[in-house]
Amino acid sequence: MVTAAPRGQFITLEGTEGVGKSSLMTALSEWLIAQGESVVTTREPGGTAIGEDLRSLLLDPANQNLSDLTELGLMFAARSQHVFERIEPALARGDWVICDRFTDSTYAYQGGGRGISATLIAQFEDLTLGSFAPNLTLLLDVPIAIGLARAAQVGAPDRFESEQHAFFERARETFLRRAETQARTQIIDASQSQVIVKRSVLRLVEQHWRSVQGNPHE
Amino acid sequence: MVTAAPRGQFITLEGTEGVGKSSLMTALSEWLIAQGESVVTTREPGGTAIGEDLRSLLLDPANQNLSDLTELGLMFAARSQHVFERIEPALARGDWVICDRFTDSTYAYQGGGRGISATLIAQFEDLTLGSFAPNLTLLLDVPIAIGLARAAQVGAPDRFESEQHAFFERARETFLRRAETQARTQIIDASQSQVIVKRSVLRLVEQHWRSVQGNPHE
Repeated sequence: MVTAAPRGQFITLEGTEGVGKSSLMTALSEWLIAQGESVVTTREPGGTAIGEDLRSLLLDPANQNLSDLTELGLMFAARSQHVFERIEPALARGDWVICDRFTDSTYAYQGGGRGISATLIAQFEDLTLGSFAPNLTLLLDVPIAIGLARAAQVGAPDRFESEQHAFFERARETFLRRAETQARTQIIDASQSQVIVKRSVLRLVEQHWRSVQGNPHE
Repeated sequence: MVTAAPRGQFITLEGTEGVGKSSLMTALSEWLIAQGESVVTTREPGGTAIGEDLRSLLLDPANQNLSDLTELGLMFAARSQHVFERIEPALARGDWVICDRFTDSTYAYQGGGRGISATLIAQFEDLTLGSFAPNLTLLLDVPIAIGLARAAQVGAPDRFESEQHAFFERARETFLRRAETQARTQIIDASQSQVIVKRSVLRLVEQHWRSVQGNPHE
């Protein structure tokens, strides 16, 4: 008798600029692979051919004219394609999916940052994703001044990175407030040393991994 | 004392492939200009720099993977940008705007054609446009076989034109059913000769133009 693979787990990494998501993605992925899991790493906006086209459009500093509502619509259109084409099929075949940003970033950036109401975002979320959500979210939190200083070392700013300090303060605030209402979200103080942050993140993922071993369909 | 210009009127041309919208756009525009109106002609998907990028993505036959829901989201994201950046500012300064396709096409193609429920489309419409709608819609109706034969003469088919006959039959059906519920929509039998169709369209636009002369803010 053939047994279907247990459904994979969907982990998202969230936070404002310069919190160190990229290097943690790698560490997380390596740890899960060492446990024998198949791992897909991806990012938003993007993650599919169509989504990466939309990412270019969304991040291009030349697109000054993009309305807040269009930006919101494009984020969800790209996300819908990402879930349909990449994330859901991977989870269905039993892979673990680790994604750099997901819907929480929309609440933080388009909501907190741009001022679009959480109610409107929730309506878009409901229309495009239904109840689909991450199993575990790691929110890397760092004071904005520190994060922006780190991010500034990485190259020319994109359309979001060009925003003012206050935009990111509102985004950070929204991430933190939202985390309180989402049991799936763990907050990590990412102003600590890289070694300590990595250790905290791996411990949280190990806990989650152990919790689903006996109960893989949750 | 300076008097604000009366708000312009928003006219949309709708219909399946090969109904002759393009040449009618020109005739309509010329007639309105002859009456002293400022006219903006535009099209969907597209009409803005960002929208035209999305149009390329939506029409590219290579994008076989595009999910129906993503397609719907992109249509409304492009439309939201179009209204924000181009249509609404033009109407506000008193211009007449003539648009090749608008939300009715979404009900027909993504709804009737692809099978997305009208309820879901109406929710997207409400979230992105609120109560914004055309003042007059000219639905050019032609049997699918005739329209497709005409459209086939124009060049390589795009992602929509590559659809099967039945897709367009459902779209046509949806256009016609929807017209019955929208007082703003006039159906024109576009299987008649070009001269007669043009005359019918101009007569309808003249009626509309006259109706708003005494009451330009409606």
